[in-house]
Amino acid sequence: MNPLPTFATRTTIHQVEEGSELAPKFDVDGLIPCVTSDAVTGEVLMLGWMNAQALRLTIATSQAHYWSRSRQVLWHKGATSGLVQQVVELRIDDDQDALWLRVSVQAGPHSDAASCHVGYRSCFYRRVEPGGGRLRFVESAKTFDPRLVYGDAPNPTVL
Amino acid sequence: MNPLPTFATRTTIHQVEEGSELAPKFDVDGLIPCVTSDAVTGEVLMLGWMNAQALRLTIATSQAHYWSRSRQVLWHKGATSGLVQQVVELRIDDDQDALWLRVSVQAGPHSDAASCHVGYRSCFYRRVEPGGGRLRFVESAKTFDPRLVYGDAPNPTVL
Repeated sequence: MNPLPTFATRTTIHQVEEGSELAPKFDVDGLIPCVTSDAVTGEVLMLGWMNAQALRLTIATSQAHYWSRSRQVLWHKGATSGLVQQVVELRIDDDQDALWLRVSVQAGPHSDAASCHVGYRSCFYRRVEPGGGRLRFVESAKTFDPRLVYGDAPNPTVL
Repeated sequence: MNPLPTFATRTTIHQVEEGSELAPKFDVDGLIPCVTSDAVTGEVLMLGWMNAQALRLTIATSQAHYWSRSRQVLWHKGATSGLVQQVVELRIDDDQDALWLRVSVQAGPHSDAASCHVGYRSCFYRRVEPGGGRLRFVESAKTFDPRLVYGDAPNPTVL
């Protein structure tokens, strides 16, 4: 893999907004949100979180790494499921406190390409009905069976 | 506008992940992150934050409302610039702690359609160069002049 990149210190608004130095802002928990989308279809697959090490590893390896807030561990996406996210492009926003990762997802041993632990292709598999509070499924079927892929690992969803 | 929707209480993981009740999870600050993309091109325009009222108003009016963390106010996107985001579709993720808003951005009196306070179409106007920590501009020119649109309003970017 490439060497781990370093980040610039944030000194001025001009530097952060108009410059070419990577100077990400991590929140009070040391995390930055990352929108991950399919590089070909544009579908948003998930909203993940990275700490500094996850961001460095994502850049150095060209594979998505996140910080799992529910499990409190560095998370190489696909390490368990095989559904690795290959980085096509990484973008950062104006004030450098959010990332947009465009990826290509590889299929796993038990599954076509997917990114959601519930088994769907995208985590955003439900839409909010206009004018109301009801949800409607956008994906008609799961891509994989989570029991087959994750076994009896605990569900990361927190109530 | 439609009546403000109500949100369901989060009771079980099955309800949250597999159900059709809107039961969003707000963080310790009462906020939920929202990925906003162009409904036609799929381009991610911004990552915003909503509190419960902003989410209710977004659903009821079909125009994007956010909570401005830097200004600490409810923010009807486009109220100042005219660059209103019309909701095409609103999605929520598996554990209902993130939103994906697909919008159509209308042009303003001083600008073609854009969503970034710096003047670019998307807030994500820079990519991280592969293997390094340098940024490269993806948009070649600003869509509007922020001074013309915002006057002397303070820049919302926080160092």
